[in-house]
Amino acid sequence: MIVVMGPNSTKNDAEKVLSHIETKVGLKAHMIAGEAQNVIGVIGQIYPELQNELELMPGVGEVIRVSKPYKLAGRDFHPDDSVIKVGDVSIGGNEMVVMAGPCAVEDRQQILDTARIAKASGARILRGGAFKPRSSPYSFRGLGEEGLRLLSEARDETGLPIITEVMNSNDVELVERHADILQIGARNVQNFNLLDVVGQIRKPVLLKRGFSTSYEEWLLSAEYIIAGGNHQVILCERGIRTFETYTRNTLDLEAIPVIKKLSHLPIVVDPSHATGRWDLVTPMALAAVAAGAHGLLIEVHPNPDKALSDGPQSLNFDNFQRLMEGVRGIAGAVGRTVAPGQG
Amino acid sequence: MIVVMGPNSTKNDAEKVLSHIETKVGLKAHMIAGEAQNVIGVIGQIYPELQNELELMPGVGEVIRVSKPYKLAGRDFHPDDSVIKVGDVSIGGNEMVVMAGPCAVEDRQQILDTARIAKASGARILRGGAFKPRSSPYSFRGLGEEGLRLLSEARDETGLPIITEVMNSNDVELVERHADILQIGARNVQNFNLLDVVGQIRKPVLLKRGFSTSYEEWLLSAEYIIAGGNHQVILCERGIRTFETYTRNTLDLEAIPVIKKLSHLPIVVDPSHATGRWDLVTPMALAAVAAGAHGLLIEVHPNPDKALSDGPQSLNFDNFQRLMEGVRGIAGAVGRTVAPGQG
Amino acid sequence: MIVVMGPNSTKNDAEKVLSHIETKVGLKAHMIAGEAQNVIGVIGQIYPELQNELELMPGVGEVIRVSKPYKLAGRDFHPDDSVIKVGDVSIGGNEMVVMAGPCAVEDRQQILDTARIAKASGARILRGGAFKPRSSPYSFRGLGEEGLRLLSEARDETGLPIITEVMNSNDVELVERHADILQIGARNVQNFNLLDVVGQIRKPVLLKRGFSTSYEEWLLSAEYIIAGGNHQVILCERGIRTFETYTRNTLDLEAIPVIKKLSHLPIVVDPSHATGRWDLVTPMALAAVAAGAHGLLIEVHPNPDKALSDGPQSLNFDNFQRLMEGVRGIAGAVGRTVAPGQG
Amino acid sequence: MIVVMGPNSTKNDAEKVLSHIETKVGLKAHMIAGEAQNVIGVIGQIYPELQNELELMPGVGEVIRVSKPYKLAGRDFHPDDSVIKVGDVSIGGNEMVVMAGPCAVEDRQQILDTARIAKASGARILRGGAFKPRSSPYSFRGLGEEGLRLLSEARDETGLPIITEVMNSNDVELVERHADILQIGARNVQNFNLLDVVGQIRKPVLLKRGFSTSYEEWLLSAEYIIAGGNHQVILCERGIRTFETYTRNTLDLEAIPVIKKLSHLPIVVDPSHATGRWDLVTPMALAAVAAGAHGLLIEVHPNPDKALSDGPQSLNFDNFQRLMEGVRGIAGAVGRTVAPGQG
Repeated sequence: MIVVMGPNSTKNDAEKVLSHIETKVGLKAHMIAGEAQNVIGVIGQIYPELQNELELMPGVGEVIRVSKPYKLAGRDFHPDDSVIKVGDVSIGGNEMVVMAGPCAVEDRQQILDTARIAKASGARILRGGAFKPRSSPYSFRGLGEEGLRLLSEARDETGLPIITEVMNSNDVELVERHADILQIGARNVQNFNLLDVVGQIRKPVLLKRGFSTSYEEWLLSAEYIIAGGNHQVILCERGIRTFETYTRNTLDLEAIPVIKKLSHLPIVVDPSHATGRWDLVTPMALAAVAAGAHGLLIEVHPNPDKALSDGPQSLNFDNFQRLMEGVRGIAGAVGRTVAPGQG
Repeated sequence: MIVVMGPNSTKNDAEKVLSHIETKVGLKAHMIAGEAQNVIGVIGQIYPELQNELELMPGVGEVIRVSKPYKLAGRDFHPDDSVIKVGDVSIGGNEMVVMAGPCAVEDRQQILDTARIAKASGARILRGGAFKPRSSPYSFRGLGEEGLRLLSEARDETGLPIITEVMNSNDVELVERHADILQIGARNVQNFNLLDVVGQIRKPVLLKRGFSTSYEEWLLSAEYIIAGGNHQVILCERGIRTFETYTRNTLDLEAIPVIKKLSHLPIVVDPSHATGRWDLVTPMALAAVAAGAHGLLIEVHPNPDKALSDGPQSLNFDNFQRLMEGVRGIAGAVGRTVAPGQG
Repeated sequence: MIVVMGPNSTKNDAEKVLSHIETKVGLKAHMIAGEAQNVIGVIGQIYPELQNELELMPGVGEVIRVSKPYKLAGRDFHPDDSVIKVGDVSIGGNEMVVMAGPCAVEDRQQILDTARIAKASGARILRGGAFKPRSSPYSFRGLGEEGLRLLSEARDETGLPIITEVMNSNDVELVERHADILQIGARNVQNFNLLDVVGQIRKPVLLKRGFSTSYEEWLLSAEYIIAGGNHQVILCERGIRTFETYTRNTLDLEAIPVIKKLSHLPIVVDPSHATGRWDLVTPMALAAVAAGAHGLLIEVHPNPDKALSDGPQSLNFDNFQRLMEGVRGIAGAVGRTVAPGQG
Repeated sequence: MIVVMGPNSTKNDAEKVLSHIETKVGLKAHMIAGEAQNVIGVIGQIYPELQNELELMPGVGEVIRVSKPYKLAGRDFHPDDSVIKVGDVSIGGNEMVVMAGPCAVEDRQQILDTARIAKASGARILRGGAFKPRSSPYSFRGLGEEGLRLLSEARDETGLPIITEVMNSNDVELVERHADILQIGARNVQNFNLLDVVGQIRKPVLLKRGFSTSYEEWLLSAEYIIAGGNHQVILCERGIRTFETYTRNTLDLEAIPVIKKLSHLPIVVDPSHATGRWDLVTPMALAAVAAGAHGLLIEVHPNPDKALSDGPQSLNFDNFQRLMEGVRGIAGAVGRTVAPGQG
């Protein structure tokens, strides 16, 4: 940590800062006398509140944190990539893993048909919502436990592991019984209670970035889960909120190389929720693969114009198969593999 | 709802849209033939998914929602201001209500001292966090139930009703036992499960706007609570996330007149969290009063540079008293009252 | 400037950084050996490109600029407020100065009527656009030189100094002949050629903040003008672009206390352009005065629903008079003066 | 255009709107009586100010524009892609065109070396700045006319057409004499005077999106140029400003499929300025190609750590050659061609 004294601060101000730091166990301070400004370096076991304490002292201009506030999620002390195993699927390695399925599970036929097509096209994981976050209380909120049972049935038939969202700490036990990967949605990225609870389980968690979550905050939310004991965290970029309103969100693909630099955790991309329009999903999926994503989350629906939730962003089966062909081409060009379709 | 057909759509496309609408119970469609484009007006009981369905039909250019998606929180069907009573305090009427206290309850002395000063200066409600949302898992997260007990003791002594945050639906019963107003924080504005649960209680709820929540989403979140049966919702603007990083957030004071136009609910402002710097709190508090806020949430701490949470944004007692004098002046200038200090 | 070496950097990396700095004339480097990371302080005449050079060196984690990049616009070396004189009006002192008039000058009657009402209500400066920036090439772009002549006539009759926008360096000479204050619009805040040219003149310049200009960039743009020799710069906050679309822009009133802290230049607020809606102008104007603005820019039009430009955000004469009464009340409450109306 | 009357509006309000519209030459109005709200459709030659006029009339809730405000830049009346020819290079067709070179021309050796490498690697156009926009007045602002002469020399030697920025309408004639494509930078996207002037020339113009320019505003700026008579406009996405500060800007690759849908103009991407970090340039360049960009603008420098401008975002020759290999792979996978290197 570095304390920059203001240009009009006195020698006495700087000395008070020095002595404040040195009264703390495990901290040392070094002073650099500049021509215009003095700078104090702080070394040792810095606790989160220290920055605030120092910023308030007379004469202090700025306090700059140097080391990153996330240790377990960061790459500094964990240089190798984390690879998360779900059945025979590995996320975070050389295979580009496609997770596909409907936004919401609606009925038995819908989820089974989609699961079969997903598998036949090369998807490796089946997605589907049983609990749906909806901004209006009057919208369809999902089938709940019945949806989880239908997903399990689709897994039993196809062998595809399933990922589904958990919105609330009380449902974690129930969702964990059915799901292979638990998804934390964008609106819950800083629901710290939920993060604590999924930190206690032993199944992988896919943590979506919030609409306006910085990289650092996102990694701190991952840190909550890992600090709880669950190291199997997958990050998912799904678009951020900007001034542009033509699309639902702006997909931030810079997140892929940045997160790979800052963290050892796998990063996947959800172009369906980011764009909110099915005709933008394929170009953004291909772009994500080219940029190095470890996986994709894609909404597929047998009949998007009858979907109970987010129909406009879902691909029908034909368009999904075309997307998979495109993904295969790009993955090949960047030296990554994609599972073959299993008709 | 209005459906604008694309410029290259056919007559047949428009007829399919018409017939899709007219098969639905309770809906009627009217066609306006334009020179360049056709437009279809939809009248009746529109369900949330209809927009999506129509947007996907061939030839459709745009689907525009005309009526607001929130009914209970909106002013259209509730033209008079809601006034929320907490003990002998009314929020939403002519009195400008100040809620003051520390970010986090730290110990008995701290909360009692602050409560006394708050009351002596004219604050009407005591704030204080027992459960603290923190972006890092390593930061102080509040005293929990012990904090609630200390708040209750401060209320018993001073007579000030208390407001405190509830972060999680499992804690609602506990917090409700102690608090007079339950606060939902910015990060939980779309924690729909928590909104559902506080919709079941019969105490007022203060709902903070999220960092990147639009006015419409915010009112829809209020709609969740009211739809559950709890009509006592107070809205709180606390700054939004923008590109500017010098301050923690950008306080959006346009929210005050806009929310008053769109909704009958009271709106208060939290300049402490918005700015993140104590030296900006007073000017922003005065501005909020001038713009018509029904109340203020202000962080006060006996010793801000020792605070365990958000010290840099807390006022010390002297500065709080000066803020109250300023608030009194502005409130008078706009024809509002502020409670006198009760030494 | 401070160079933070990465956690995996070598001693050799740090030595190369040290020697790179010490080869430069006027620079010195100091090393602080930390437990986890080394930090190098740089002292002396830092040139703008040094940060880039250092960031690219092997092992460097971060380079942090400590001193502010604007010297002439900043308060560090100019602690007293600048007060800009225009005729007998002082901007930046204790008087809250209202500048009022139509968005665009449309005809003789319109500008003369508005000027008289402005003066009668206590406005001190007449605003009006002769050259109008318009996002569509098909919109009314202003009367040009004829508009300037009409403004001059209105000044001759009422004695009010005039402010008007200059969009382009070729027009500076022409606009300077007529105007008392030249306005640089939000879209031109980084039109560096225009900034250079108005730096050569000797009349005050009102520099609007751009839609997405940070405080630092804004002050750097002011620095361009002052570095050219023109010290008479007035800053004007006019709303920033955020995710919220209900209003045209989000008025950032935190800019008032922040700019007063960072800079000695006067700061005024334009609530008309920020909100884009006349019914939000008065609450935001009052808020700006409460927060400490040195002045206001207000759109007034004799007949807003016939205005050729930005009618929806203009006040009619009655509403403007009410605004002035409100402003007078708030200004009084914060110890500021407003000129009396001069019927 | 559609006028939605407010829920509390009267029949008389609606009739006044109808009659206001019908007094205008070339406009017709149709009324749809809804159960809750009345809606009025407006057909005919709508002028830009009509929306404002109607929004202000009593009882009007909302006025919705249906047709797009840009005609010449839009695809509705120009369904085929525009292909812009520069020498033997076509931009907007099947070839993915790479434009490469240094941020700023610094000296003869630098630009000639870079031009040779660019050509040898398969770049088709040489970029280089002679006039540089810089947020600080104290930074290097480019070599000016001397830079243009050096670029011309590099073209003469290599045969690569050149693109360079023009910041100011007075320089258009000079820049046009040397350049094959004139670039308008992000900060000038709404410098309407400059847009007017480059609308008069007969060389292609590359128009960068501003930091906070919406798709519609960007296309309206293109409309300025085309309305002036110059149809050769190339759009360039270069990142937008968001809340995320780790990277310089957030590259919005959704712009590629969206602009292709809304407009017939070619769209290229500048990952160097968007990211501000050389290590993010290649992944974002590959993503842009995968998403369908017609071209790329890439900063290359023989010695990035000595660059006078934007060194940290420039690739050295080795990294540029690797980027070109990657681009070739992705382009092949999506059925596009890239010119072979011409050593």
